[in-house]
Amino acid sequence: MKHDLIRLAVVGLGNIGHAAIEAIYAAPDMELAGIVRRKTSGAEGTSYGVPVVSDIAKLKDVDVALLCGPTRTIPETAPIYLQQGISTVDSFDIHGEPLWELRRSLHAEAKAHACVAVVSAGWDPGTDSVLRTLFLVMAPRGLTHTNFGPGMSMGHSVAAKSKAGVKDALSMTIPLGSGVHRRMVYVALEKGTDFEAIKKAILEDAYFAKDETHVTEVPNVEALQDMGHGVRMERRGVSGQSHNQHFEFTMRVNNPALTAQVMVACARAAVKHLLPGAYTLPEIPPMDLLPGNRGDLIRSLI
Amino acid sequence: MKHDLIRLAVVGLGNIGHAAIEAIYAAPDMELAGIVRRKTSGAEGTSYGVPVVSDIAKLKDVDVALLCGPTRTIPETAPIYLQQGISTVDSFDIHGEPLWELRRSLHAEAKAHACVAVVSAGWDPGTDSVLRTLFLVMAPRGLTHTNFGPGMSMGHSVAAKSKAGVKDALSMTIPLGSGVHRRMVYVALEKGTDFEAIKKAILEDAYFAKDETHVTEVPNVEALQDMGHGVRMERRGVSGQSHNQHFEFTMRVNNPALTAQVMVACARAAVKHLLPGAYTLPEIPPMDLLPGNRGDLIRSLI
Repeated sequence: MKHDLIRLAVVGLGNIGHAAIEAIYAAPDMELAGIVRRKTSGAEGTSYGVPVVSDIAKLKDVDVALLCGPTRTIPETAPIYLQQGISTVDSFDIHGEPLWELRRSLHAEAKAHACVAVVSAGWDPGTDSVLRTLFLVMAPRGLTHTNFGPGMSMGHSVAAKSKAGVKDALSMTIPLGSGVHRRMVYVALEKGTDFEAIKKAILEDAYFAKDETHVTEVPNVEALQDMGHGVRMERRGVSGQSHNQHFEFTMRVNNPALTAQVMVACARAAVKHLLPGAYTLPEIPPMDLLPGNRGDLIRSLI
Repeated sequence: MKHDLIRLAVVGLGNIGHAAIEAIYAAPDMELAGIVRRKTSGAEGTSYGVPVVSDIAKLKDVDVALLCGPTRTIPETAPIYLQQGISTVDSFDIHGEPLWELRRSLHAEAKAHACVAVVSAGWDPGTDSVLRTLFLVMAPRGLTHTNFGPGMSMGHSVAAKSKAGVKDALSMTIPLGSGVHRRMVYVALEKGTDFEAIKKAILEDAYFAKDETHVTEVPNVEALQDMGHGVRMERRGVSGQSHNQHFEFTMRVNNPALTAQVMVACARAAVKHLLPGAYTLPEIPPMDLLPGNRGDLIRSLI
């Protein structure tokens, strides 16, 4: 970092990209270097008072690229930036093997180019993952349940929308407890589309097949959309030999705003604190995510 | 570490020390090397199947000393172990300047002797501090309130017990919300002691002067004692430009069991992951507190 403020580029300008720009403007130690969009091709310009470009090389002194595009593009997009020595933060959200595979491959890439990749920075995966880790630390034996919602699931909405004849779709996640969820799917159909056939296709889709799912036809999906989401995570377990330890975390949030806020905080850790390599959120010291000096933070927060 | 299992010494055998031994026996990657007690002087022996000694030098290959004595002894005790190249974990619980001062002085000591000191490892300070940090990351503007209890406060109980004529005392912390607490103090008095004078002395004590405090005389304090404690921590704030973000954490726990469990987890991070120096809990990657390999943890927890 050869400058006073951490310089960020926002790559992709959907819900997360817009929210990331708001979080950068609210941060005392950061500035927006520019926006990278695929679609500009020739028609580059400015937005939010910064350059909009199709190639990050046209922006000056970028420390971190916030990858705000779709999850499935991250494995091929992130290395492009890392190979230029630009650190990346993404919110890749496919848990399990794909997440570990991404973390593993970007680790090698980031180390080779002396920069940092923060993988799956958001709230789940992300801050929820830190809490699951902490709950396991506090009570090594026991069960954790993560209950999502009520709130809109992006992945399930996209899956429902992908059926031929569906104009727009919204899938709400309703928590039934113990990590079991109901899916409430609202679809707006193109003229002449058979609702019963669509309903059947959605119920058979792998995204929905395992959960209780209700499909309803509505004239207008947009009128139902709300970015609010929530979580209730609970663990009951044993510390040492003491049973009946109980921990619970709940939140109600604007979903893209929280995701973007966490990504921006991870960019700070990437530039100021972390050694080259790739990290998931529970692999980062939480205090490295905050601005301010160590003494003040320890005196006021601990 | 020249051996397969992390070898721990428990220093001090009060509530925390006993609970620490239980947590060590439950850990897959640790063993108890021995117990250090001041009082053994000459009468050393064994307990829990391990040596009880007055000097840690009599124990073999100790990686970490868990300092389970009173908070006020930590600043002078910890350096003794660090200077022998033995890492330490304590649960020093005086927030603010004293905590920062301890972290700062042990940092120099630990670095000089190539070992690690984890400071204030417990639940508050400790895991609550990690949550306060995380809440601030998720919503940089807003207010966090930490509400303790209902549960027994060690510090306040000791303060009440210190008045001349008090045989035994218990101070319960009752949360009234917004971080405001009521103190319910139960005292057993020595024969002929004036209850009204004791009550006045307790109400004027700096520990109680700022809070609503009720003092009650009881025949027997022991009959009221329960190691259960709890927390409700809440933050309302702003992520980026999005207001109305709401986070809440609650727990109900056996107090010494959780404190000891967190201390034992910190010993693992000290031996396996951290560079020489001193750390508070939010300065440690949460995943470093767990046993198991990185890939398995990331696949199952993130």
